[in-house]
Amino acid sequence: MTESWANPGVAGPSAFGADLHLHLELTGPGLRAGLTQALREAVRGGRLAPGTRLPSSRSLAADLGVARNTVANSYAELVAEGWLTAQQGSGTRVARRARPARAASGRAAEVRAGASRPGPTYGLLPGSPNLAEFPRTRWLGAARRALTAAPYDAFGYGDPLGRMELRSVLADYLARARGVYAEPERVVVCSGFHHGLTLIAQVLRARRVRAVAVESYGFDVYRNLLAGAGLDIPPLPVDEHGARTDDLVRLPGVGAVLVTPAHQYPTGVALSPDRRTAVVDWARATGGLILEDDYDGEFRYDRQPVGAVQGLDPERVVYFGTVSKSLAPGLRLAWMVLPGELVRQVAAAKGSVDWSSALEQLTLAEFIASGAYDRHVRAMRLRYRRRRDQLVAALASRAPGVRVTGLAAGLQAVLELPPGTERAVVEAAARRGLAVGGLAQFRYEVADSGRRPPERDALVVNYAAPSDSAWAGALDALCRVMP
Amino acid sequence: MTESWANPGVAGPSAFGADLHLHLELTGPGLRAGLTQALREAVRGGRLAPGTRLPSSRSLAADLGVARNTVANSYAELVAEGWLTAQQGSGTRVARRARPARAASGRAAEVRAGASRPGPTYGLLPGSPNLAEFPRTRWLGAARRALTAAPYDAFGYGDPLGRMELRSVLADYLARARGVYAEPERVVVCSGFHHGLTLIAQVLRARRVRAVAVESYGFDVYRNLLAGAGLDIPPLPVDEHGARTDDLVRLPGVGAVLVTPAHQYPTGVALSPDRRTAVVDWARATGGLILEDDYDGEFRYDRQPVGAVQGLDPERVVYFGTVSKSLAPGLRLAWMVLPGELVRQVAAAKGSVDWSSALEQLTLAEFIASGAYDRHVRAMRLRYRRRRDQLVAALASRAPGVRVTGLAAGLQAVLELPPGTERAVVEAAARRGLAVGGLAQFRYEVADSGRRPPERDALVVNYAAPSDSAWAGALDALCRVMP
Repeated sequence: MTESWANPGVAGPSAFGADLHLHLELTGPGLRAGLTQALREAVRGGRLAPGTRLPSSRSLAADLGVARNTVANSYAELVAEGWLTAQQGSGTRVARRARPARAASGRAAEVRAGASRPGPTYGLLPGSPNLAEFPRTRWLGAARRALTAAPYDAFGYGDPLGRMELRSVLADYLARARGVYAEPERVVVCSGFHHGLTLIAQVLRARRVRAVAVESYGFDVYRNLLAGAGLDIPPLPVDEHGARTDDLVRLPGVGAVLVTPAHQYPTGVALSPDRRTAVVDWARATGGLILEDDYDGEFRYDRQPVGAVQGLDPERVVYFGTVSKSLAPGLRLAWMVLPGELVRQVAAAKGSVDWSSALEQLTLAEFIASGAYDRHVRAMRLRYRRRRDQLVAALASRAPGVRVTGLAAGLQAVLELPPGTERAVVEAAARRGLAVGGLAQFRYEVADSGRRPPERDALVVNYAAPSDSAWAGALDALCRVMP
Repeated sequence: MTESWANPGVAGPSAFGADLHLHLELTGPGLRAGLTQALREAVRGGRLAPGTRLPSSRSLAADLGVARNTVANSYAELVAEGWLTAQQGSGTRVARRARPARAASGRAAEVRAGASRPGPTYGLLPGSPNLAEFPRTRWLGAARRALTAAPYDAFGYGDPLGRMELRSVLADYLARARGVYAEPERVVVCSGFHHGLTLIAQVLRARRVRAVAVESYGFDVYRNLLAGAGLDIPPLPVDEHGARTDDLVRLPGVGAVLVTPAHQYPTGVALSPDRRTAVVDWARATGGLILEDDYDGEFRYDRQPVGAVQGLDPERVVYFGTVSKSLAPGLRLAWMVLPGELVRQVAAAKGSVDWSSALEQLTLAEFIASGAYDRHVRAMRLRYRRRRDQLVAALASRAPGVRVTGLAAGLQAVLELPPGTERAVVEAAARRGLAVGGLAQFRYEVADSGRRPPERDALVVNYAAPSDSAWAGALDALCRVMP
């Protein structure tokens, strides 16, 4: 795919319609000299990039309140000096050879091109859905309808809780699709799970919570976020039934627990019914809060999705959802459904303003309300399921010793490896251009706690992420590095 | 294609309150079909909530400039389809069954209609640009081009510093229009000034800064944000030359200063050259940081915009800019240009992910690069300037005793009042349906500091915000309450 981002410095005819800021002493006989000097400095210093089209002498003269000839003469002088070029029909531009001291635009171009620097050929790292499948056309259609229909106040400083149109549509959707007890008043929009967890950490601290239990496998960024907010984060072991929530009663001083019940991240197991009951019982008995990260609850393949724990006791659960797996992380849109008593505190933590674009919020509301969201999720569920089945079939025939787990849902699978081989396999994969994560990077150990999770060698394979054209190659490379 | 914002002005909670916006193809034989379709979509999409009373066919017809029968026939068709109901004496309403099940939509509708609950007729409170002027069509065009051209990785978890396309375009724009020394590498995108200041407060705390001087007139939300982050906030007096930055040397232990140099908020004066020099000298001598809030630097009417202080010493200034005044606060897009040494720390404070929608960032980049941003700012500058001139002329003829200041730039003016009258005037305005701010609400005093700013009675009047249709009435009401 070609990037068509024109550096405005080298863009076409509309490049300058345009404001130009100059430091000028606009008085007396030195007027023209001052203007010439200011323009020269702007070019020399790099503020005006090579190729930038300058305003017409008429328009700049009007802006500066000087005679047009003064500007025209300045331009002519700088053309003579080689700083500017003048061409029939394309106006006056900064000369290309006038490369300034700084090379900002050039560096920017390098960074922009960075996507194509040598890197892994195949990316199977967990975390991202298939970005090639983002429904651009339908999203744009929703954006058009939303933008056309938006009331004036959508363009203003918003409600810190988010646009009511989206909160209302989400309440309907979450009740229907995820079994969440949701009223629009307790739905809060945020800029991704990271933002939501930041807000909740702030609220927990304000409520004098000192420790949040976390799963012994998980994403370190979120553990670090909680720890950075001054919270202790004792680990809760994870086994084949999910997090050992029955252990919570043995962890003194814990005021909240962060769990991934629908699909433990990254091991992929669902929290068993007993454990669901245990975590709710714990929360009721202690006044603790359950932080339910429902990051990919929509994607379950072999039966109905497991409903959210939140439905069991909405006053004890902070439910987190996101479009990061169902649509795209780049939208930076997520939501929380809060116990009623927390709404006010979360709003206060968010500050006096909304943080997410009202237009994006209205677009998502329209996208969901029109049914496009459901259709997209359903289509992706079929595609991801097919990918999963292909992965299982390929491994069964080419690496029959490898046991695959965490398959029932989500975007990734866990490939169990013989003890002690994980690191070697990850490195062998890298040599084949295959970026794949070992389970070790998700393991959370507290050295002196005696609560070390059992060592487990495994790969976490995101079978959803590769584009269709890369998938066959990625699968082949994966099978080749299996022991 | 015609866009119409009909406000039939029907009062009462269950009546049709908000503006009814319909996107119509108002030509040819498809007129009625187009209207029917637009209404049906508005009901189906939830924009028109169950029970909502529609404007009378006469009034909607007048607003759309079509025959009354066309509207009446559309209504009849939708009644037949079950989308609307018509009852003698209570007009045409959205059918209750049109959006079944949960009461959420009803509640949402109430909240949505909240914009039309009894409130001020005219809003002149400072802070917001003219929301009716948001360039919907051109923004959507930019969004379409951006979405079409976006590389796959734009849909993924982004660089915490923001999309390079936008940072690069902003660097060029800020250099050209605001005299900012900007390299893309030191431009950081954030979700509004509030987000940016939150990040900087975190970084300042990590650098063991204990106090940030603030202007003795300003927006309390930002002072509270700094104080909430654990920073002391000694006031810096503001006079007719801007903040008394020459006083900084007499404030011990201050590690940073938050200023609005281009257009002091809300008094409207520009920081004088001496004071600009003073603040830079202070920063260099003490290693302090200047936090430059350039919230409306684009809007200057009588001469070239005052360039940013940042250009004087990029390594000592954190420059903040935003689209909140130039486009719309609802986009939640702002940016910082950082001293090189702070980039890493701000990225760390932001966390491992971007916070702003990549699509909105790419849209803004495209909007700027295409020249649409410059054209919009220019057009708005002309409109706001005309508004300002009308305000001055009206006051000169109808309230000649009132001195108007802070006029050279921005979206608001300060109307100086006789001592002791401010509160009475604000209240008299409220009784006339005029929401207008007194200067007192922006005053920052520290009781025991002996640094009280001189008492000044004044109104802060946002002449930019009212829609065109409201402006004449707002101006008239304002003149009537002047002493």
